[in-house]
Amino acid sequence: MLFLNAKFIDLDLGANAVIVNEEDLKGTSYYPQDRVLIESHSGSVLGILYSTKTMVQKGEVGIPVRKMKGISLKEGEEVNLRHAEKPESIQFIKKKMDGQVLSPNEIRTIIDEIVSKKLSNIELAAFVTSTYVNGMNMEEIVEMTKRMAETGDMISWEKSLVVDIHSIGGVPGNKYALLSIPILAAAGITIPKTSSRAITSPAGTADVMEVLTNVELDEEELKRVVKATNGCLVWGGGVNLAPADDIIINVERPVSIDPQPQLLASVMAKKVATGIKYAVIDIPVGKGVKIKNEAEGAKLARKFIELGELLNIRVECVLTYGGQPLGRAIGPALEAKEALEALTDPKSAPKSLIEKAISLAGILLELGGSAQIGDGQKLAWEILESGRALEKFNQIIVEQGGTPKKPEEIELGKYVEEVRSPIDGYIVGINNTSITNVVKEAGAPRDKKAGLLLNAKIGNKVKRGDILYTIYSGSEERLNSAVNLARRVYPVNVEGMMIERISKF
Amino acid sequence: MLFLNAKFIDLDLGANAVIVNEEDLKGTSYYPQDRVLIESHSGSVLGILYSTKTMVQKGEVGIPVRKMKGISLKEGEEVNLRHAEKPESIQFIKKKMDGQVLSPNEIRTIIDEIVSKKLSNIELAAFVTSTYVNGMNMEEIVEMTKRMAETGDMISWEKSLVVDIHSIGGVPGNKYALLSIPILAAAGITIPKTSSRAITSPAGTADVMEVLTNVELDEEELKRVVKATNGCLVWGGGVNLAPADDIIINVERPVSIDPQPQLLASVMAKKVATGIKYAVIDIPVGKGVKIKNEAEGAKLARKFIELGELLNIRVECVLTYGGQPLGRAIGPALEAKEALEALTDPKSAPKSLIEKAISLAGILLELGGSAQIGDGQKLAWEILESGRALEKFNQIIVEQGGTPKKPEEIELGKYVEEVRSPIDGYIVGINNTSITNVVKEAGAPRDKKAGLLLNAKIGNKVKRGDILYTIYSGSEERLNSAVNLARRVYPVNVEGMMIERISKF
Repeated sequence: MLFLNAKFIDLDLGANAVIVNEEDLKGTSYYPQDRVLIESHSGSVLGILYSTKTMVQKGEVGIPVRKMKGISLKEGEEVNLRHAEKPESIQFIKKKMDGQVLSPNEIRTIIDEIVSKKLSNIELAAFVTSTYVNGMNMEEIVEMTKRMAETGDMISWEKSLVVDIHSIGGVPGNKYALLSIPILAAAGITIPKTSSRAITSPAGTADVMEVLTNVELDEEELKRVVKATNGCLVWGGGVNLAPADDIIINVERPVSIDPQPQLLASVMAKKVATGIKYAVIDIPVGKGVKIKNEAEGAKLARKFIELGELLNIRVECVLTYGGQPLGRAIGPALEAKEALEALTDPKSAPKSLIEKAISLAGILLELGGSAQIGDGQKLAWEILESGRALEKFNQIIVEQGGTPKKPEEIELGKYVEEVRSPIDGYIVGINNTSITNVVKEAGAPRDKKAGLLLNAKIGNKVKRGDILYTIYSGSEERLNSAVNLARRVYPVNVEGMMIERISKF
Repeated sequence: MLFLNAKFIDLDLGANAVIVNEEDLKGTSYYPQDRVLIESHSGSVLGILYSTKTMVQKGEVGIPVRKMKGISLKEGEEVNLRHAEKPESIQFIKKKMDGQVLSPNEIRTIIDEIVSKKLSNIELAAFVTSTYVNGMNMEEIVEMTKRMAETGDMISWEKSLVVDIHSIGGVPGNKYALLSIPILAAAGITIPKTSSRAITSPAGTADVMEVLTNVELDEEELKRVVKATNGCLVWGGGVNLAPADDIIINVERPVSIDPQPQLLASVMAKKVATGIKYAVIDIPVGKGVKIKNEAEGAKLARKFIELGELLNIRVECVLTYGGQPLGRAIGPALEAKEALEALTDPKSAPKSLIEKAISLAGILLELGGSAQIGDGQKLAWEILESGRALEKFNQIIVEQGGTPKKPEEIELGKYVEEVRSPIDGYIVGINNTSITNVVKEAGAPRDKKAGLLLNAKIGNKVKRGDILYTIYSGSEERLNSAVNLARRVYPVNVEGMMIERISKF
């Protein structure tokens, strides 16, 4: 046991960090990454031990203030530090490492201890890695999904026709929800859409919507907006939905893995938590997105449908073409503008955007009984074309706290560079990854006015000197940096008709 | 890219920590655990991103000062922060997760990036977990072992007969090396023994030896002592041997796994690095030690021998009884005293200690040609009994910077509690884990005078009121705490002859 004085410190290390001067640890049985309990007369706190030379002095212990819940220690008071029991989950994680199936109770314990921040990043990484390697069966996934939902806020609705649309993995420019949600809401279907901010893409749906209105709503506000309009388009982080998910994602990102059990549970737990009864899951397939081919997409689709059945959620999956951006605009403001233009004048909008928006909405119109099977897409188009979707969209904007705008009122980055074709030829490729990186380099998603507008898409004919795309940024320096990157990574590829020239027979 | 001012900070988070105020991260594409590069005109540093509310202010970035190597930034200077490439290892770790065999080059890259602190704890945990689940073949283990050795100091010797004895997993009271090493050194065999401080046990060999002399020697000092005496007994941490090992152990401990490939490489890399040609590996088997049964021990032994062959190190393994402590003394000072008594008067010493010390030394005397096969143990006993081992031991103590002591000069904890048998009966069990915990509670290994002295061992007959064991501590409070723990965990079990009484027919 060590005797120390408490000092408040604030650092997000996943689990609570408890920081001690390395001099105090020398020759003791305490090591960095040990799980320790800090106790005093006024309370106690559990944490993971870290050592420092300078952050706290000899005799001090830095304790976390970020999560004040459960911490009743006072700064400066004398505390003692001792080894704490390992959380129960460790043995279940070990079991999964050994290739065994976990019982419902074991899964629940793991999720509970993730949510209560009892597991260190090392322990979480061991859990994620072992589910990646050894997998989970459907019963395990169902239990994990349910528990992830139950450990956060659970939203319930009086209506039974509550639906959602969800895309797996990012296609740049994926702003279709700004069309589909108001179409469905206008048809009287309840669609409480929560979405993420950009994780790997240059603009998440929440980032795009934030150009037009407030997206940080809590549960009460969300329910009020949905009651008033049938729909909403808000950031999921404002509501405490399936909080284990974010914690798990934070350890998946560094090792670039997304084990299928976690992917399934992550998506479906949020559906359970928001009281969804029907969900359409969009699985983009192609180069530069998560799912590389149709067979893989179909396999994942079947898992989603099976999991949905076991959770009493009717799921339909759609494989969509993800090989190039959706529409022409990438970046928050450009995408908001393109969506608003499409709602205002759908006939002039990019076909890919309209088609995706009305086909996904159409499925839910059919599932919800608003349209006969086969007529959903037609009804969706009618709602869009009649202006009812735009009207509903503006109503949602107002209810979320914004003021409706015309497309031309949306401000774009004032530093602009047009990139032109060096030759006559055809667009043979548009590279999702390159576009994503160029738009991020231009400042998105933080700089909402940063983005890239494609002037041509795959298969289009271009002449030398034609504009291929335009880069926007709010900062001259960022613009230059993005242009330099674009020169190296070729967001758009043009080739002449002659693909190859063979000079010897 | 973020623009910030550098602030020096010191925290050991495995890889370099780069700490930014969470306000600065909001709406950006930077997330905690991202790998980032901090750049300025004067230099750059690679790190893992963490967020804080208070540790650094908005606009500041905390950069690590612990490892000054490669850090040429000045405090307060303007820097920019951007995403850094993932280390090459990540893809190889992913490959191991996918159950594939790694090439020599891939293994080397992983070890190199571990040593240069490029991998975060999450990434390390993914590596360790995936080798635990998917294993490694012998070629992979050989490559890992070699690279772990090469990335640290490599000690070479003019003599070819350089030997070592190594125990896997802790048996409490395992002080035999204080006898075996001087026996071998007295026989003219070179034995540069490096050992660890206590990891899970109450006293590592280095902790025990430190009661008698200095154990923190650097490479030059170690070589000088070995040149003068043929042997040494020093702490491995004073020399930079296979530095990847400590980093890996730090992520294994929290999840309580020790994948066999890592165990093999960890032991053998240090043998390679210290230029060992013959090694005896002691594998204690029994309750409360790492290896639970003989079959498991034999399997591990074969792996050690095979790995040794591929590394040009002749390895012999010995399975020893690890079901109760070795000798009667547990705790640094008590063990040093018991070892010194055994060197002074081996005939009165505990049989288990003498037997282990001379049988392990005997094998190396035979391997080294000092004794005929079958005569090693006899020669070891002669060296011990003649006083030559004690003389050599004192010579080593002097060369390492200490002054030889008589056993009775060793100070023990002045707070003492004798624990007596409540009944007439037999010692039916001595619990390694309970003893370890009681001795740690009494203050070991930090309090060198804390410990436990067994007065009886398994099978001994005791009368009611006989002393079973004595607990020592340098602090009254710790003694009480240890006595309280002992009352709950029963380090020694006594039972009457009548094991069970059946009262109904």
